[in-house]
Amino acid sequence: MSRVVQKYGGSSVADADSIKRVAKRIAATRAEGHEVVVVISAMGDTTDDLMDLALRVSPQPPPRELDMLLTAGERMSAALLAMAIADQGMTARSFTGSQAGVITTGTHGNARIIDITPGRIVSALEAGDIVIVAGFQGVAQDTKDITTLGRGASDTTAVALAAAMDADYCEIYTDVDGVFTADPRIAPNARRIPSISYEEMLEMAACGAKILHLRCVEYARRENVAVHVRSSFSTKDGTWVKELEKGTAMEQAIISGVAHDRGEAKITIVGVPDRIGEAARIFEAIAAIDVNIDMIVQNVSAVSTGRTDISFTLPKTDGQKAIDKLRALKDSVGFDTLLYDDQIGKVSVIGVGMRSHPGVTAKFFSALAEAEVNLEMISTSEIRISVVVDEADVDRAVRAAHTAFGLDSSEQAVVYAGTGR
Amino acid sequence: MSRVVQKYGGSSVADADSIKRVAKRIAATRAEGHEVVVVISAMGDTTDDLMDLALRVSPQPPPRELDMLLTAGERMSAALLAMAIADQGMTARSFTGSQAGVITTGTHGNARIIDITPGRIVSALEAGDIVIVAGFQGVAQDTKDITTLGRGASDTTAVALAAAMDADYCEIYTDVDGVFTADPRIAPNARRIPSISYEEMLEMAACGAKILHLRCVEYARRENVAVHVRSSFSTKDGTWVKELEKGTAMEQAIISGVAHDRGEAKITIVGVPDRIGEAARIFEAIAAIDVNIDMIVQNVSAVSTGRTDISFTLPKTDGQKAIDKLRALKDSVGFDTLLYDDQIGKVSVIGVGMRSHPGVTAKFFSALAEAEVNLEMISTSEIRISVVVDEADVDRAVRAAHTAFGLDSSEQAVVYAGTGR
Repeated sequence: MSRVVQKYGGSSVADADSIKRVAKRIAATRAEGHEVVVVISAMGDTTDDLMDLALRVSPQPPPRELDMLLTAGERMSAALLAMAIADQGMTARSFTGSQAGVITTGTHGNARIIDITPGRIVSALEAGDIVIVAGFQGVAQDTKDITTLGRGASDTTAVALAAAMDADYCEIYTDVDGVFTADPRIAPNARRIPSISYEEMLEMAACGAKILHLRCVEYARRENVAVHVRSSFSTKDGTWVKELEKGTAMEQAIISGVAHDRGEAKITIVGVPDRIGEAARIFEAIAAIDVNIDMIVQNVSAVSTGRTDISFTLPKTDGQKAIDKLRALKDSVGFDTLLYDDQIGKVSVIGVGMRSHPGVTAKFFSALAEAEVNLEMISTSEIRISVVVDEADVDRAVRAAHTAFGLDSSEQAVVYAGTGR
Repeated sequence: MSRVVQKYGGSSVADADSIKRVAKRIAATRAEGHEVVVVISAMGDTTDDLMDLALRVSPQPPPRELDMLLTAGERMSAALLAMAIADQGMTARSFTGSQAGVITTGTHGNARIIDITPGRIVSALEAGDIVIVAGFQGVAQDTKDITTLGRGASDTTAVALAAAMDADYCEIYTDVDGVFTADPRIAPNARRIPSISYEEMLEMAACGAKILHLRCVEYARRENVAVHVRSSFSTKDGTWVKELEKGTAMEQAIISGVAHDRGEAKITIVGVPDRIGEAARIFEAIAAIDVNIDMIVQNVSAVSTGRTDISFTLPKTDGQKAIDKLRALKDSVGFDTLLYDDQIGKVSVIGVGMRSHPGVTAKFFSALAEAEVNLEMISTSEIRISVVVDEADVDRAVRAAHTAFGLDSSEQAVVYAGTGR
């Protein structure tokens, strides 16, 4: 008998029929003799609807109260799922994050899990019950107030529970068959990746692959939890995210996958005086307004002018905030002008194989050149190469890289409806 | 500075605008310097909608999970109200029943309050915050599972909190101006009752006046909490339910009010053998299926046959269940036949004044006779006389009694839309 944590997203429990379908699947797992803990998201659009309601009541709802409100969503889906499982002849108990012992920091809206004290869950499992835990939520260690972990953090709840309860593995159910070598909507010959290392999955998540949350993968790597990402619409194997055995990487393709991200914008600060400390001043100002910078490129300073250009990318949603902040610095820093471009996309190739295979960069760039894709920015890590291109070139760049690194399958990937998150 | 508990029902917080309106009212009370604890029901039809959803998932949802689901309703309205109050520039904190220390029995769906441990609420009040408590819910003493107190029990939560926190009084906000001498929709000349004793209010509630829950009034009497029932749509005084000073009753009308109830049905068991123990067997059987009997009448036994007829009233919703149970007893008890009538209504006159005024019964009955209302059953208590009449005669009976006891006002009562509960 193994102990399994399963997580189902909002699209898997969008209505009464979906809830019943998921209940059958969970009951079947229990019937095989496994101990089952299920982490559940709010139904369909519940969280968005509650947020709309909050904004109709108050333009700036206090974060503590927003958490109180939003956590009702998972509470409802957890209770409904427990009912549907009871209807399958199994016993199930739902628990809120607080009841499940998910102890967090006090940062409302974006709390971090500090500890899990799963006493009530363990008792329920020992009594033979299926346990349903409301995802995305916990209770603050200091104030005992209800907290949320940030959007999409039910994955993290699942991995954290799997770690705390010493589960054999954690299954993340979504509406696609697993992690693919590229987005099948762009690259129809993309293949499912049977297994992938934590490092590669982290780079994929950071580069726009939306299938798993960055924080969830970090947690799984730190606690060494084997994560199985799979479809709630089929019983096929999905993608295992885990510590790969030595040598496994050698047998795999050099590149595991091609990721892309259309969510970023680029800001260029033109004519920054080439003095020590100017770049620091700029990025301290950006950090002060809580904007996450992704790539940064600084040109070689022009000797004639003693000035340089600095470009960086950031989430589109933070664009206006950053521009406003930088504009206020114009006189004190003494730069010439600001350029803003949100018609960009980032394309990345990722793979631990590139450590042992030289020439990956050359191959990537020549594939892009052949596809007539112009590179605006470049950034690399040990197992990743990312380029910023014109947004209109993203699809062509993804397909070119996918083909160049031999990732194309002879079969067409199956794409399901829905967004998966 | 006084300490006030206010309770607002679902119709007072049906949408974002209502929530804002209620928030202003609460903020105004706080601004007067009072400590304010607010108990809130779920918005409008939320509880019914959640119940429908549960039934779509499972025909017989487990009560523990149903409580988990339904309590989300008050959690949401509590958080939204706290947001709206914050928008008024005041600080407010919402608490679930569990967080507020509402400790109950473990009977899911119909739990009773055992104790209140209001530590967190008191701390919040001491910090100057307005406290919002989700009504209708608590946490079971033994299992720590979430419980509900039964429909409409937010009133009871409010009174219990007022008692536990030694509040000066408890305001129950509803959509009518208070308790009336009769339902103004039937008797347009009905008057608001400025103050009424616990005993009279208990009889009114038991006889169909829907403005306050029976359990809430019982709790208020036991703990001697002064309850002010008033409209959330005006600032006028409503009705005070409290211990009346000696002599007050003398100054009041003999009859405080006329109540009616169309929610009952009548079962007559014809030809019951007149043997010791037969009535006990019948009512034990009815008690075993959890049906509450209201009035019971047994005819004088006919000497010739040695048989008698027994009639009793019960909630219409339990009619079928009771009939099925009694039918199964037919052979063992040996009665002749069962009659079922749900076209009845109960009309009651209530007043502590009748203790010191003889002739109330005669006056009531002659008023009904003049109005050509036939009496099917009669039952009395020390401060109440109830009669069962044909459903079609209820309105006429109410008006006749109201006039006969001098309750008619010269002004017409204001009737607001909505149900009030």
